[in-house]
Order: sequence, then C-alpha cells, then structure tokens
Amino acid sequence: MISLENTTLLCVISAPSGAGKTTLCERLLAEFDQLNYSVSCTTRPPRPGEENGKDYYFISETEFHERIQQGDFLEYASVHGYQYGTLKSQVLQGIETGKDVLMDLDVQGAFRLRRTLHANQEDALLKQSYADIFIAPPSIETLEKRLRSRGKDPKDVIGRRLDRAEKECARWSEYRYLIVNDDLETSYNILRSILIAEHHRVRKS
Amino acid sequence: MISLENTTLLCVISAPSGAGKTTLCERLLAEFDQLNYSVSCTTRPPRPGEENGKDYYFISETEFHERIQQGDFLEYASVHGYQYGTLKSQVLQGIETGKDVLMDLDVQGAFRLRRTLHANQEDALLKQSYADIFIAPPSIETLEKRLRSRGKDPKDVIGRRLDRAEKECARWSEYRYLIVNDDLETSYNILRSILIAEHHRVRKS
Repeated sequence: MISLENTTLLCVISAPSGAGKTTLCERLLAEFDQLNYSVSCTTRPPRPGEENGKDYYFISETEFHERIQQGDFLEYASVHGYQYGTLKSQVLQGIETGKDVLMDLDVQGAFRLRRTLHANQEDALLKQSYADIFIAPPSIETLEKRLRSRGKDPKDVIGRRLDRAEKECARWSEYRYLIVNDDLETSYNILRSILIAEHHRVRKS
Repeated sequence: MISLENTTLLCVISAPSGAGKTTLCERLLAEFDQLNYSVSCTTRPPRPGEENGKDYYFISETEFHERIQQGDFLEYASVHGYQYGTLKSQVLQGIETGKDVLMDLDVQGAFRLRRTLHANQEDALLKQSYADIFIAPPSIETLEKRLRSRGKDPKDVIGRRLDRAEKECARWSEYRYLIVNDDLETSYNILRSILIAEHHRVRKS
C-alpha cells in the first residue's frame, strides 16, 4: 500500500588520510550485499598491492583527458598533481542493478558531485537518494600519531598529509553527516545506521 | 576539534492504532538511556491499566482550556472528541537535562508541531534537531487482522479505527522517515538506526 520508491542510494564518504575511512568502507561493503563500490579512475601510479579495476582504474594522462572530452566522468579533480575521476558508468551500473553505490571521494570530488547532482544534468541520477558523510579524526594530533605509527610515509609526506587533512576537516559542514572516528566500533555502528536510515527517508532535501 | 553542537533530538513517532508503535517505542526507551518520553495531556478518561503521569496526564476539559490559555502547550489537537496536547515543559525538561525527547503524536499533532517549530516561536526548541517518523502497517487488510486478533475492540470501533488509519496513512509523505512495519525486528532495527543517524546529521534541513 505504502512504500518509498525503490531508489538507489548514492553514498559518498570523505575523510583525510588516516581517519579510518578504508577500514570502515571495507566493513560496510562486507556487511551490505546491496552496496557496490564505485571504482574511480586515476592517473596516479599504483601503490604496492593496489589492483587495477579493484582499487582504481589506473589510466594515462592522455586517456584521462579523452574521457573528460567524452563526458565519461560524473566529477573529476586534481589532487597532488594527479587526476581522479568518478565514472558515470560505475554509478549507472549500480542504479540499473538496483544496488546502492559507495563512492570514496575527497572533499573536492564530493563538492563537484553535489554540484553536478544539483545542476540536474543527470536525470537518472537525480532520482536517486544522495547522502554524504565526512569521517574526521578526533584531532589533528591523533591523526599525526596514527600516520607516524603506520610507518608508511616519510616525514615530509606526513607533513603534507596533515596540512591537507586540516584543510579538508575545515569543510565537514558541507556534508550531511559527520562521524568523528574516535573508536572504530562506535563509528562503524553509526555508519551502518546512516545507511539503513537513509533508505527510509521520505524527504530528499 | 570538530564536533556537532550538542543538541537534543526531538523525535516524533506517528502511526495508526495497531501498526506496532507502542511496542517499538517501548523498546527504544528501554535501549536508549538518553531518551525521555514526553507524556501528553488528554481529556480522555484513562483505559484500564493506564497510569496518570506515565501514559498521559489525565486532566479535565476545564483544566485543558486553562492550560491552552496559559500557553502551556507546544501543540494540541482534538481526536474523536477528546483533546490531546504536548506540554512545553516536557520538552524543555529534556533539553535542560541534555536528553532526547520521544513524542507519540497523531498526524494532526505532528503537523501542528512541525508548523510551530517552523514558525520560530520557540527559540530554545528550534535549536534542537527534529525528526519525525511514520510507522505504517503493510496494508489496511493486515491492520484489520491485527485489530481483530487483539480482541480489544468491538466491531464498530474497529471500523472507525480502520477509516482513521486510512486517512492517517495518506499523510505519510509529510514525515522525514517512513517505516512499513512488516516485521517487528526489522522495523526496530530501522528505528534505532534513524535515532543514531540523526545524531550525526550536520544539515538540519
């Protein structure tokens, strides 16, 4: 008798490096079968262990520009001199199969995607629900400790990541939801609750 | 460093009689310590087992009208010839103690409360987050079966309840969230998720 339209949820997660986003997203994808991860394109070279088509589609600068020309991207942005872009095809595939789409975007990417959806350029996309979540570290000091203890990055890279984290964190209020990741279990519980709640939202605003 | 303002959540739940609202609310209050139930005033006589000050404040027509004059109500409405009203004091008490407030209102009451909050009449109240949830039965037929099997009401009362349920269900789209209560466990999981998610909402719109 009564039901919400069966729409796909487009869910964007942004977080500075070290805030715990990857772990949280992996758990979400493991729990929710109906959630598809949208694999982005990038011109940055793969890091050890990264797989083409799973972590990213690793493509050349030339191909990236061709794809821009062809209108293949829903949004794209340049970060640290490399290009990153969300393929329309990844999102449409989710919509066609009735699955939710999880996008891991930086603040620039999320901002551009919001603008695109708002600008009504993509009819099929606009009919979907959209929710974006910012995951913040409890403080920049905590983030610094986490990045140091990971031992992955040299000092100057950590410094650059922290500068960038501070700038990104300043934009948390652009998002619909904020999770301050102090404790992983608590944060995961909030994240999955947001996903469930969003499927029962009536007003899309 | 980053945090949402520590606001109280005003949570309104509406549902036609027999949709499972009471059970769901009781479970919510049992699980969430920070949730306070807002006891309404009514001029309807208590039913067997109902306690004054727990289920309702049972007051006379005269007292109800005096309280309207004194501006004691956040909203009030007449249902089946009886008056029902939400006391401002109940909600303010929640806000002062930093607790969320759960309100069980019919569609008229929820509509009036939304209008009051929108009209900006209550500053302290407007700063709070507000979420309303409509709980619907899977169908009017299911509701009829449930009401009959409860065996509490005579036939004509069931007929009246069903008429009213149909009218109420027609207004589900006024709410922020819709839960179609087909299975109690599933519905409860959604309800608690909404409460958790709403505490992490940034944009209040």
